[in-house]
Amino acid sequence: MTEFSLKDAKITGNFWQNFMELVRTEVVPYQWAALNDRIENAEPSYCMHNFQVAAGKKAGKHGGLVFQDSDVAKFLEAVAYVLAWHPDSELENIIDAAIDDIVAAQQPDGYLNTYYILNGLEKRFTNLKDNHELYCLGHFLEAAVAYYHTTGKDKLLKALIKYVDLVDSLIGAEDGKTHGYPGHQEIELALIKLYEITQDEKHLKLAKYFIDERGKTPLFFQEETEKQGNNFYWQHSLFQYGYYQAHKPVREQQHAVGHSVRALYMYSGMADVAHKTGDETLMNACKRLWSDVTSKQMYITGGVGSSHYGEAFTFGYDLPNDTVYAETCASIALAFFARRMLEYDGFKAEYADVLEQTLYNGIISGMAADGKSFFYVNPLEVVPKATQKDQLKSHVKTQRQKWFGCACCPPNLARILASLASYAYAKNNDTLYINLFAESEVKSKLQSGTIALNITTRYPWSGTITVKITEISPKSTLAMRIPGWCEKYSVKINNAAANKKLQNGYLTLTTLKTGDEIILDLDMPVNIIESNPAVRENIGKVAIMRGPIVYCLEEVDNGDNLHHIALPANATFTHHHDKDFYCGAVTLQTTAKKLQPTGTQSLYQKSHPPKYTNVTTKWIPYYLWANREPGEMCCWVRVLN
Amino acid sequence: MTEFSLKDAKITGNFWQNFMELVRTEVVPYQWAALNDRIENAEPSYCMHNFQVAAGKKAGKHGGLVFQDSDVAKFLEAVAYVLAWHPDSELENIIDAAIDDIVAAQQPDGYLNTYYILNGLEKRFTNLKDNHELYCLGHFLEAAVAYYHTTGKDKLLKALIKYVDLVDSLIGAEDGKTHGYPGHQEIELALIKLYEITQDEKHLKLAKYFIDERGKTPLFFQEETEKQGNNFYWQHSLFQYGYYQAHKPVREQQHAVGHSVRALYMYSGMADVAHKTGDETLMNACKRLWSDVTSKQMYITGGVGSSHYGEAFTFGYDLPNDTVYAETCASIALAFFARRMLEYDGFKAEYADVLEQTLYNGIISGMAADGKSFFYVNPLEVVPKATQKDQLKSHVKTQRQKWFGCACCPPNLARILASLASYAYAKNNDTLYINLFAESEVKSKLQSGTIALNITTRYPWSGTITVKITEISPKSTLAMRIPGWCEKYSVKINNAAANKKLQNGYLTLTTLKTGDEIILDLDMPVNIIESNPAVRENIGKVAIMRGPIVYCLEEVDNGDNLHHIALPANATFTHHHDKDFYCGAVTLQTTAKKLQPTGTQSLYQKSHPPKYTNVTTKWIPYYLWANREPGEMCCWVRVLN
Repeated sequence: MTEFSLKDAKITGNFWQNFMELVRTEVVPYQWAALNDRIENAEPSYCMHNFQVAAGKKAGKHGGLVFQDSDVAKFLEAVAYVLAWHPDSELENIIDAAIDDIVAAQQPDGYLNTYYILNGLEKRFTNLKDNHELYCLGHFLEAAVAYYHTTGKDKLLKALIKYVDLVDSLIGAEDGKTHGYPGHQEIELALIKLYEITQDEKHLKLAKYFIDERGKTPLFFQEETEKQGNNFYWQHSLFQYGYYQAHKPVREQQHAVGHSVRALYMYSGMADVAHKTGDETLMNACKRLWSDVTSKQMYITGGVGSSHYGEAFTFGYDLPNDTVYAETCASIALAFFARRMLEYDGFKAEYADVLEQTLYNGIISGMAADGKSFFYVNPLEVVPKATQKDQLKSHVKTQRQKWFGCACCPPNLARILASLASYAYAKNNDTLYINLFAESEVKSKLQSGTIALNITTRYPWSGTITVKITEISPKSTLAMRIPGWCEKYSVKINNAAANKKLQNGYLTLTTLKTGDEIILDLDMPVNIIESNPAVRENIGKVAIMRGPIVYCLEEVDNGDNLHHIALPANATFTHHHDKDFYCGAVTLQTTAKKLQPTGTQSLYQKSHPPKYTNVTTKWIPYYLWANREPGEMCCWVRVLN
Repeated sequence: MTEFSLKDAKITGNFWQNFMELVRTEVVPYQWAALNDRIENAEPSYCMHNFQVAAGKKAGKHGGLVFQDSDVAKFLEAVAYVLAWHPDSELENIIDAAIDDIVAAQQPDGYLNTYYILNGLEKRFTNLKDNHELYCLGHFLEAAVAYYHTTGKDKLLKALIKYVDLVDSLIGAEDGKTHGYPGHQEIELALIKLYEITQDEKHLKLAKYFIDERGKTPLFFQEETEKQGNNFYWQHSLFQYGYYQAHKPVREQQHAVGHSVRALYMYSGMADVAHKTGDETLMNACKRLWSDVTSKQMYITGGVGSSHYGEAFTFGYDLPNDTVYAETCASIALAFFARRMLEYDGFKAEYADVLEQTLYNGIISGMAADGKSFFYVNPLEVVPKATQKDQLKSHVKTQRQKWFGCACCPPNLARILASLASYAYAKNNDTLYINLFAESEVKSKLQSGTIALNITTRYPWSGTITVKITEISPKSTLAMRIPGWCEKYSVKINNAAANKKLQNGYLTLTTLKTGDEIILDLDMPVNIIESNPAVRENIGKVAIMRGPIVYCLEEVDNGDNLHHIALPANATFTHHHDKDFYCGAVTLQTTAKKLQPTGTQSLYQKSHPPKYTNVTTKWIPYYLWANREPGEMCCWVRVLN
C-alpha cells in the first residue's frame, strides 16, 4: 500500500489532535444520530432508514437524494480511521451492526444502492451521468477498505467486491457491455484502493477503463441522454460536458474545468492509475492539471472552484473573493490529489506545500471551533448584507450550519481529519518523510528496518519541531519538509548544528542513531503576500500569512466597512499567543489606516486625497472566522504603496 | 399636457441629431423588417404575423413570447415621434396599414392581445402576474397617444379606449371585479397619458387603482397564483414578491428593489398619479425612491439594476462593475422617472442632472455608433475571457447584437431618442426650461405669449451654448440648466456679462427681448471622480468625466490587462477633438502607470513594491465602447494616492 498506515503514527497532542478529538467526540456521534434521523428539529436524512427498508427490515420508501447512500459510506470510512487511533469496542459494535444492515440490502446479483432498490431496479445504470450509483459504490469501497485495514473485518469488503463484479460484467470495453463511466468520479481512486488489497487485475483494469473511456467521441453521456431520454442539465450553460470533465479525453485536458470535486477526485484517480500502470502520458496530464489548479485557480486559502454556478472551476486567475464557492469538499479533494502527486512524483515538497496550505486554511475553515457546525462555502470576503440582498452571494453564509440536506462536507471533513496521520507522513524505500508537523509518535517499517520517533511541536503557532529518535536502522533516512513559505531555518542534532542537505525541498537526515534529538527551527515571521497581478480581484491588495496560516480581519475585532482598511507597505505585525483564544491560536496586530467616516456624501464627486485614521487592526487565523458574532470578514486588504 | 410637445422643438444638428437620424434611417427600417420577419438569417419575431393571424388575415399560430405585442407598440410609438420631426407620408401609410392590422385583431368586447386571442381567450386575465396583458396594453396606449399627437389620427386610440373600458369592467375595487394589478408595470403611466387627452376620470381612477392596490394584504399575486395554479418563479429566491415591487404597498416602500424596469416604470406612474391627484404621500414615496435609486444604486453611467439575476436592484452601494446588468431599458426608464420628477417637483436641476447622466452614457451605450446593433447589458468593466468562461458574467457581451428574441431595448432606445426634444425642454407658466443642450429650434406657447429661439452648440464636446431669441413676450423667462458637474461658467447677453441668477440650479433669464443673443459658457475640465467609499467595488479607484460624458479605457487603445493601469492622483488630461472619430467625439489622454510584466510569477509570493512603467493612456467616451475590435474595457481605475 502506498498510503501511510494509520497504525504507524499517532497524533498525540496540540493542533491536529484537537481537531481529531472534535471529530471523535462531536462529529461522529452527531453524524451517527443524523444518519439515523435522531436529531430533533432537523429534516430526516433517511440514510440508515433506506438500507433498513431495502433490506426488508422495516417498511417505508426511499428518502433523500439519489446519492444519499454516500453519506453513510463517508461516515463509515471516517469511523474506521477513528478506530485506528482510538479503539472503541462499543463504537465498533455499532459499525458492525450498520454493516449488517447495509449488506442485508444487497441484491442476489450483488447490486447495492438503495435509491434503485427502492425505486425500481429496472432503471439502474440508466443514468450514469447524474444518478451517482458508481459514486456511491466508490465511497463504500473506500469505507470497506478503511474498515478492513483497521479491524481486519471483511464483511463489507466482500459484499462490495461482489458489487464491483456486477459492475464489471455490465460496464467496460467488451462488446455487449455499456461503454460508460460515472457522472461523478470517485470510484476510480476507490478501485485502486481495492486493488491494493485484492491485487486482482480486474479492479485495476476497471479503474483504468473509466479513466480511458471518459470524453471519447462519440460521447457516452450524449448517447445515454438520447437513448434513455435523460435530462441534460447543462445544455444551455457554458459548461456543456466540461461540467463532468467529459468534454475531451482526460489525457488531452489542459485546464481544470467544471465541478471541482468531480475534477479533483478524477485527477486523484488518474494519478493512481498512472502510478500503478506506469502510464507517463496520464501522469503528464496529472502534472499539467495540478499546475493549472495550484498555480492559476487556487485561493490563498487552498480553496478551489471559484464559481457557485456548478460549484466549479472557471479559468486561470479568476479568483473573486466574495462570489466565491471554494467548497470544503473541493479543498479536501485537492488534498487527496496533493498526497498522491507527492507520493507518485518523487516526493517533491511543493506538493506537500499545497497540502499544508489547504489543510490549515480552506479545509478546517469548514468546521466550527466546537465541531458542531459546518461551512460548504469558504469565502475570502463577506459582507452580511450582500449575502442577504444579492442572490449572487446568497450561497455565502455568515454562520456555519448544523447539517445539510446534501451533507457532503461534514463527513468528508471527518474522514480527512481522522486520517490526518496518513497525510503527515509518507515512506519510500528507506526514507520516512515528515510532510506535516504534528505532535505525534511514529513507528513504521522501512525497507531495511524500523524507524520510530516522537515529535513535539506547537506548530503552526511555533516553528520549532523537536524529533526524538527512539529506534532506527543504520540505512534509514529521515526527510523533514522545509515549507515553501520558510526562508530561513536552523537544524540541530543533539544540540549541534547539523548539515542542511535539501532534496526536493526536504531536509534529508542520514546516519541518525537511536536517542538522537533533532531540533528543526523554522523562522516564522509574518509575511505580507501579494497575488500574481493577473488576479484582478487582488490587484493593489495583500494578504497576511504567518507560517502556513492565512489571516483575516473580522468585524467583531475591527468594526464594519473592512474595505476602508488599508495597510502601509511597510506594516509590521506583532503576534500574540493567547491561551484562551481557540486552543492558543496566534493572533496578529498591526497599525493600519482606516478611511475616516465622511458623513453624508454624494454617490459620485470630484476625487480628493483620502483621509485616514491610524487604527490597530487585529488579525485572526482565517480558519477561525465566524466563530464569534456574525459580521464582515476579509482576507485581502488594500496596500498603500 | 405636461410633456413638452415634439412639435414645439426641432433638434437641428450635431450630437443628438446624429442619434435621431440613426433611429430614423437605420433603426426604424430595420425594426419594421424585423417585426415583419424579413431579416435574413434571423429567427422570426412573429410580431405583425400574430396580429394578421389574430385578425383572420392569414393562417398560422402565435409566435414569440407572451409580450411579443409590446415590440410592435414601442415601434409605433417611436415612429410617431419620428414623424413629428420628420414628416414622411410613405412611412405614415405603412403605419396606418399596421394599425389597420392591429385593430382588425380586436375582439368584439374590446380585447386586444394576440397571445390569448390565438392561444385561448378563456385564459385571459388569469395570470396578471406574469403574462403581460396590461403591460402590452400600456405600451399600445403610449403608441396610440403619440400617434394621435403627431397625426391627429385616432383609430388606434379609439380601439384602445374600448380595450381599457373592458379592463376597467373586469379589474378594480368594486365587488365582482378582480382586485388585481399588472405583474409588469407600464399601464399606470400610459393611462395618465390617455387621461391627458380624454380627461375621462375613469382613466385616472384606473391608474390610481393599480398603484393603490399593489402590495396590499392579502396579496393579489399570491391569491391569483393559488387560485389559477400559476407558477411562482421567485418562490425560492431572495426576491419573493419584491421582484414585482408588490412586497408592500407602494407608499411604504423605502428602497428600490426587484426588476429595475418594472420598478422605474412604476415610480414614473406613481409620480404621474401623485401629480394629477395632488397626493403628497405618494409624491413623498416617489422622492424617497428617487433618492434611493440615484444616490445609492446608480452607476456613474446612469446604469441601474446591478444584478443580472432578475435584472434587478440589490441594495445601497452594491455596484459591481463586471457582473453588472444595467439594462439599457432600465436607464431609459430612469430617464422617464427623472423627467416626471423634474416637472412635478418644482423644476429642480438635480433631476435633469440624472437625466443627462443616463442619456449621455448608459442609454446611448445601448446602441452601436452605426445604429445597427444593440446592448442589453451595459457593463463598466469587461474582460472577454470572463464573459466566455464564467457563467456569472456570460450575460455581459463584448459586442452589440442585431436584434433579440426578447427585443425590448432597441425599440425602447428608438422611442426615447426620437422624442429627445421632450426631455430637452419643459415649460411651466411663463418659463421655458432648457434641460439638455442640443442644437435646435424651439417655438412654444407660454402662458402669456410665444417664445422662440435657436440654439447652437457642440455640446457635450464644448461647453459653449448660444441661444438666439427670435420671438419672446415680455413676461417670459428662459431657464437654462447649469449642470451639477459644472463648477464655473459665464453668461453673456449681447456680449455683455449678464446677471447670474440661479433658481433650483437653473440660470434664470428675464427681461429678454427678441434678437437677444445669450452665450452660456460652461467650464468643462476633465474631472477625476471618486465614488462614495461605501461602494466596495470602487474603493481606491477613480473614474474620468468631462462634462456629462463618462470615459473609459479600451484594450484596442491601451493594450490588455487594463487592471494593471493606475492613475497618479494629480494626473492631468489633454482633450482631443478628432473630426473622424465618431462624429467628432472628444477623446482624452493622460500619462498613467502600468505594471511592468513580470514574466512567470507564482500565484502567491511575498509582497514587493510594484514596478510601473509610464504609459500614455487614451480614454474614449463610455457610450462609444465596443465599436471597434472587441477587447477589455474599464471605467474605474486605481488611483495612486
